[in-house]
Amino acid sequence: MVKFISDETIKNALKEDILSGDVTTNATVDKNMTASAQIIAKQSGVICGQPVAERVFKLLDKTINYQIIKNDGEKINKGDVLANIYGSARALLTGERTALNFMQRMSGIATAAAKASEMVKGTKTRICDTRKTVPGLRAFDKYAVKTGGAYNHRFGLFDGILIKDNHIKAAGGIKQAVERARAVLPHTLKIEVETENIQMVKEALSCNADIIMLDNMDISQIIEAVKLIDGRALTEASGNMDEKNIAEIAAAGVDFISMGALTHSVKALDISMKFE
Amino acid sequence: MVKFISDETIKNALKEDILSGDVTTNATVDKNMTASAQIIAKQSGVICGQPVAERVFKLLDKTINYQIIKNDGEKINKGDVLANIYGSARALLTGERTALNFMQRMSGIATAAAKASEMVKGTKTRICDTRKTVPGLRAFDKYAVKTGGAYNHRFGLFDGILIKDNHIKAAGGIKQAVERARAVLPHTLKIEVETENIQMVKEALSCNADIIMLDNMDISQIIEAVKLIDGRALTEASGNMDEKNIAEIAAAGVDFISMGALTHSVKALDISMKFE
Amino acid sequence: MVKFISDETIKNALKEDILSGDVTTNATVDKNMTASAQIIAKQSGVICGQPVAERVFKLLDKTINYQIIKNDGEKINKGDVLANIYGSARALLTGERTALNFMQRMSGIATAAAKASEMVKGTKTRICDTRKTVPGLRAFDKYAVKTGGAYNHRFGLFDGILIKDNHIKAAGGIKQAVERARAVLPHTLKIEVETENIQMVKEALSCNADIIMLDNMDISQIIEAVKLIDGRALTEASGNMDEKNIAEIAAAGVDFISMGALTHSVKALDISMKFE
Amino acid sequence: MVKFISDETIKNALKEDILSGDVTTNATVDKNMTASAQIIAKQSGVICGQPVAERVFKLLDKTINYQIIKNDGEKINKGDVLANIYGSARALLTGERTALNFMQRMSGIATAAAKASEMVKGTKTRICDTRKTVPGLRAFDKYAVKTGGAYNHRFGLFDGILIKDNHIKAAGGIKQAVERARAVLPHTLKIEVETENIQMVKEALSCNADIIMLDNMDISQIIEAVKLIDGRALTEASGNMDEKNIAEIAAAGVDFISMGALTHSVKALDISMKFE
Amino acid sequence: MVKFISDETIKNALKEDILSGDVTTNATVDKNMTASAQIIAKQSGVICGQPVAERVFKLLDKTINYQIIKNDGEKINKGDVLANIYGSARALLTGERTALNFMQRMSGIATAAAKASEMVKGTKTRICDTRKTVPGLRAFDKYAVKTGGAYNHRFGLFDGILIKDNHIKAAGGIKQAVERARAVLPHTLKIEVETENIQMVKEALSCNADIIMLDNMDISQIIEAVKLIDGRALTEASGNMDEKNIAEIAAAGVDFISMGALTHSVKALDISMKFE
Amino acid sequence: MVKFISDETIKNALKEDILSGDVTTNATVDKNMTASAQIIAKQSGVICGQPVAERVFKLLDKTINYQIIKNDGEKINKGDVLANIYGSARALLTGERTALNFMQRMSGIATAAAKASEMVKGTKTRICDTRKTVPGLRAFDKYAVKTGGAYNHRFGLFDGILIKDNHIKAAGGIKQAVERARAVLPHTLKIEVETENIQMVKEALSCNADIIMLDNMDISQIIEAVKLIDGRALTEASGNMDEKNIAEIAAAGVDFISMGALTHSVKALDISMKFE
Repeated sequence: MVKFISDETIKNALKEDILSGDVTTNATVDKNMTASAQIIAKQSGVICGQPVAERVFKLLDKTINYQIIKNDGEKINKGDVLANIYGSARALLTGERTALNFMQRMSGIATAAAKASEMVKGTKTRICDTRKTVPGLRAFDKYAVKTGGAYNHRFGLFDGILIKDNHIKAAGGIKQAVERARAVLPHTLKIEVETENIQMVKEALSCNADIIMLDNMDISQIIEAVKLIDGRALTEASGNMDEKNIAEIAAAGVDFISMGALTHSVKALDISMKFE
Repeated sequence: MVKFISDETIKNALKEDILSGDVTTNATVDKNMTASAQIIAKQSGVICGQPVAERVFKLLDKTINYQIIKNDGEKINKGDVLANIYGSARALLTGERTALNFMQRMSGIATAAAKASEMVKGTKTRICDTRKTVPGLRAFDKYAVKTGGAYNHRFGLFDGILIKDNHIKAAGGIKQAVERARAVLPHTLKIEVETENIQMVKEALSCNADIIMLDNMDISQIIEAVKLIDGRALTEASGNMDEKNIAEIAAAGVDFISMGALTHSVKALDISMKFE
Repeated sequence: MVKFISDETIKNALKEDILSGDVTTNATVDKNMTASAQIIAKQSGVICGQPVAERVFKLLDKTINYQIIKNDGEKINKGDVLANIYGSARALLTGERTALNFMQRMSGIATAAAKASEMVKGTKTRICDTRKTVPGLRAFDKYAVKTGGAYNHRFGLFDGILIKDNHIKAAGGIKQAVERARAVLPHTLKIEVETENIQMVKEALSCNADIIMLDNMDISQIIEAVKLIDGRALTEASGNMDEKNIAEIAAAGVDFISMGALTHSVKALDISMKFE
Repeated sequence: MVKFISDETIKNALKEDILSGDVTTNATVDKNMTASAQIIAKQSGVICGQPVAERVFKLLDKTINYQIIKNDGEKINKGDVLANIYGSARALLTGERTALNFMQRMSGIATAAAKASEMVKGTKTRICDTRKTVPGLRAFDKYAVKTGGAYNHRFGLFDGILIKDNHIKAAGGIKQAVERARAVLPHTLKIEVETENIQMVKEALSCNADIIMLDNMDISQIIEAVKLIDGRALTEASGNMDEKNIAEIAAAGVDFISMGALTHSVKALDISMKFE
Repeated sequence: MVKFISDETIKNALKEDILSGDVTTNATVDKNMTASAQIIAKQSGVICGQPVAERVFKLLDKTINYQIIKNDGEKINKGDVLANIYGSARALLTGERTALNFMQRMSGIATAAAKASEMVKGTKTRICDTRKTVPGLRAFDKYAVKTGGAYNHRFGLFDGILIKDNHIKAAGGIKQAVERARAVLPHTLKIEVETENIQMVKEALSCNADIIMLDNMDISQIIEAVKLIDGRALTEASGNMDEKNIAEIAAAGVDFISMGALTHSVKALDISMKFE
Repeated sequence: MVKFISDETIKNALKEDILSGDVTTNATVDKNMTASAQIIAKQSGVICGQPVAERVFKLLDKTINYQIIKNDGEKINKGDVLANIYGSARALLTGERTALNFMQRMSGIATAAAKASEMVKGTKTRICDTRKTVPGLRAFDKYAVKTGGAYNHRFGLFDGILIKDNHIKAAGGIKQAVERARAVLPHTLKIEVETENIQMVKEALSCNADIIMLDNMDISQIIEAVKLIDGRALTEASGNMDEKNIAEIAAAGVDFISMGALTHSVKALDISMKFE
């Protein structure tokens, strides 16, 4: 994430919390008081969001000293000190919740991504994310997925061609849709086709699709599809992928498994900030 | 939510997904093609986000017809049609994911809020939210909490005085903190004090705090605190409140239970969009 | 005021003055010329806006040295040097008007707030402001009121419940309005009811309103109302409060007097900038 | 004012008042309730700001019907109905203060401008404004000045060349400053020179300044300067111009009198909104 | 271009021209006057920018009637009427220059793109654009290239992998760079490698690059490279491509020719607006 | 250009190129790698845009060291090193294209402005620009014109009065238009009238227009007009001014020649960035 771009999101987060002012802190804490605090893990997992938390505090007071102890992507255990912070007591108190809101979500995503990746270890399969992210935080969500050791699918509608059932219907068939895409789209983008059954897989293959998505197929269909495709296109399994089925599906030899739950149903990692 | 304010968030969500264009849709779907689609529940719960989804599509094409079948706050069952949409096929396809990303999160929150509220039914206790929301979406998260039948705590740092442990430490004691707050803050705001034990409860009471938060206390402490306070201040239980303990805590007679998990660990409600 | 928030207002002020460029300065003053200047009071009063003026110049050239001689809130006399400034001559000339426009208004407000506060000295009454501020400058106007020694009422529509005549009419009565508010609003906000006569005061009392506004009442009514309320609610006198009547009204024992004129009819304090 | 430009200012004004929501109105007034209201003059003067007030309400609810009874620039008397408004009760209540804040200031300015213009009637002198406007509202302030029948000076630093004492000092003299300006500036702008005594007037004349500002001169100096200039440049009197001296100064034959007080020390015109 | 996204650019263009107001038009043209005007070609070429011009006027006055006679992409001859416009005379005059500035540039690009495409007709080669566009107008420039019948390369740094000489140097070789890219980047993006000689082409081929750019090669090198690649990767000729050499290079069998001059050195098409 | 204003344009340029990230650079170049690069002229001309290019890189990484070798306005020859840059390799690679896009256009404009100015050397005529700039870049385009040694006409519609044929038509004649303008417009602006023939010149003269534009007149008309005007107004020749006719027209004694082509049809100066 380029700082001057992500800054807008972080500033907006601070604004929605502070608006006309942190009335409690401004009333109870002297303007010039300084304080030390620690970011502490209250749960095990993979840490993510340190530069974001640092930026939150620095936007409030650029003299804050934020010392990272555990870097993004490191495994952390309950009780670990993740960062030491020193500076304006007001800035620490005002920024605390916003910093933790980012960090807890990002670490929750990274932890889930790491867990899923671990489950397919030893196969060639890559776990990847989807566009099912929280509105406004896609760059943060996707960064967290990578931090956890999984992979990013396309960022949005603009950097990947994914022909879905409704595109196929609108174009009049897989063949027509692929041809239309190939006729006008930048040559830097691969063409992926979503298929729901073996017949559609065959059609996609015959159009030389670069990637074939096997959507909501059961394991036997996936196995059949992967055999049929036989390396002539990349394969991506999708649709209700979860911890129960991804090991088996990876074993079937797909190149990618895309999991919406990595970002649409995040369990926040418990992290807190303690003043000394 | 005032439309001209929430519009910025919705526009940003669309922008982050569309950026330089929905390449697939623009290539495969004719500009003037129209389509009908339905928003369908794939899971039971409480629906939330209809006006947001409608706005997503209208921002892409103001002639889209979005007919709401289930209003925000209604209970829905798997298979229910939630909305019928008709209009530009491109707008429907381009907006689909953004609309669902909002709606699935908001409905997930509303469903959890409804469930928690149900569990304290019959008591005077109100379930309320916290500031542990996703950065940038607080207005949406809090609206969803209310839609589910629970209550909103303060929106941010500006519309409620909540004196926490670190404010107390900085001010030099509960008494000093409350006095400083009372000395300068707008008289329209109540003063809430976070306490961790009975001694602190007593101090807060002696300062005439309007609300006393019982933070991370066990059930026996909560019972003792509520008795001690005896209506002289409002009481709020907080800290790891979940489905396992809220019924018991409500029975102890607290006025409010605030639950961070309502918004920091949302399970998206499964909702999809089907083209006819 | 959080700097990264108030910066937007200050930048907009500079932009509306500079737009395509300060043609005169750019033509007549060498780019690398430096200059010294002083901010000087041409009238007595209370100074306010030093950090804003400093920021105006720093936004134009971050190397400007702005040395504050009189801090916000200090009484100043005609002829006093308020600040010494040194740095880019272009930045000083380009920023002069914008800096003074902020400072003269803010000092005008602080001076009026100090005067009104002085007039109720010795009573328990607090002079407070209203929402009758200049569009876009509320944070600045309210900061100036506090700087002058008076108090802030709610910032906006979001951080205080004030049930006015039209809300009462719409809800069907004071009782209904208060109950509706209590049923849904965050428990961190007090409920204030605007009353116009003794009968309304009684109704508001019977609903346990936290604050009762005595709007446009004459002094005898105010005295009667304060006696009747007898500490069971906070009292606020409002409506054409000015230097002629506030001492008398304060003597009647109201808790607050809110004065729109503090911000809607500001007399700028005369301050100028002199180059050496 | 171009609507899509002034809209930003009006939206910001609404945002600073509403932020997270008008809690009182949303709690006490039904969403679908409609209401009628009137804007009423509580003081005589010149009305200004009708399109702005209308826009405030329309931004909240575009179906609001705002019927203007007195157009901008008309003289109004105490008790006059200025506008009838009909529509969403919530929008009327939420927008009331913001609409009035704009309107009261703008009408206050227009009234003062009309009064000053009246005082120089029969002379060739034009009363004009300055850059001493409220930060962020210059377009509104200047529109109000024109509405009152006075004239606008340059809008900002970009659309008029005004060589002041410090520019002269920096350039090394009036002659040098004027020559530098003439050497590089767009030929569409006139060159105005600020003078403080007769000697400076002579120098400005000898450089063919288009406009000569007579700054802080007493009436005898002004008379002498006007005679000396004798139509070879436009003349502008400036510096503490007020109701006491402008008639006399106009009689001296200056072309323009610029009055900072028109906008830096505005007395709001008393206007209210009454629900039926 | 999605309207609510391109609107920002169009509004900014209007703002930079109008700022504090179109002083001439507002002074000389009555507010309620209407007028008819025609957009007329003063040169032959390919028209582009009609929806943008229409939007310019509609943003100034939404009741303007803009009737398109020649659609984007049509060939036009000197003297052709391109559009009829009717509505507010002020809006027509104020918007004229901004509308034409967009349209003349966009038509200039479309015309050049059409010309270059015509020159490679009959070959499989596609003329495409580059990122050498005017800052802030990339979406407009790229739309114009397509309108002229040529193709778009990647939009920016985010939707295409293009490994250039400096990436290769930084990574330690073509092989290393391609492997690093393949290891982490979304599988929806193809990998393009920039080569400057036959040796580099061989290396790129051996890494299975999807696209090989032949940068600044002479015709004989290009012929050799295309033969060598033999369909195993897409080929793109780049570097000082112009009307003199593209026919010959296309004949050599490259898939793409990318031309920076299409957008970095645009000759505006002469188009004017005539009032009736 | 004021930095905090031009920064918005530069940031937008970077955003449109980077959006979700420079995928290639982030994949192939280590985060902490540094590099040295040179900006090199590949063509002779006048350099312009150094501070803009520097700012591009500094916005990406504020520690970048950008050493300017040739200052804006200097003549440069093919092969000249224009700047040395050192710092984050990623920032250099990510910013390269945006920096060059600004610089090539700006240097192209400066070069053309210098050439045209050279052609009228020895006369009193000043070459000036028009409002035919690229939407969004007017401040940059006009800065480049000045850098090349030519002059700026008004910046936009707000800082110069230019009464064109359609204003004349709308007002009912030159006399009426000039009078209307003089009656209401700020006295800091001169009045320019566009004329197409000698008759119109006479009318403009009789109204004491400050500047008379001779639009699309042939050389003999221009000579006649200049004689007729005889210094009583400034004269500006306009309409298809190019290298073929400006020397002759300057010799006729006009004060200004305004050339749209300086900015509407820019030939980018070839400049590249070479990594060491």
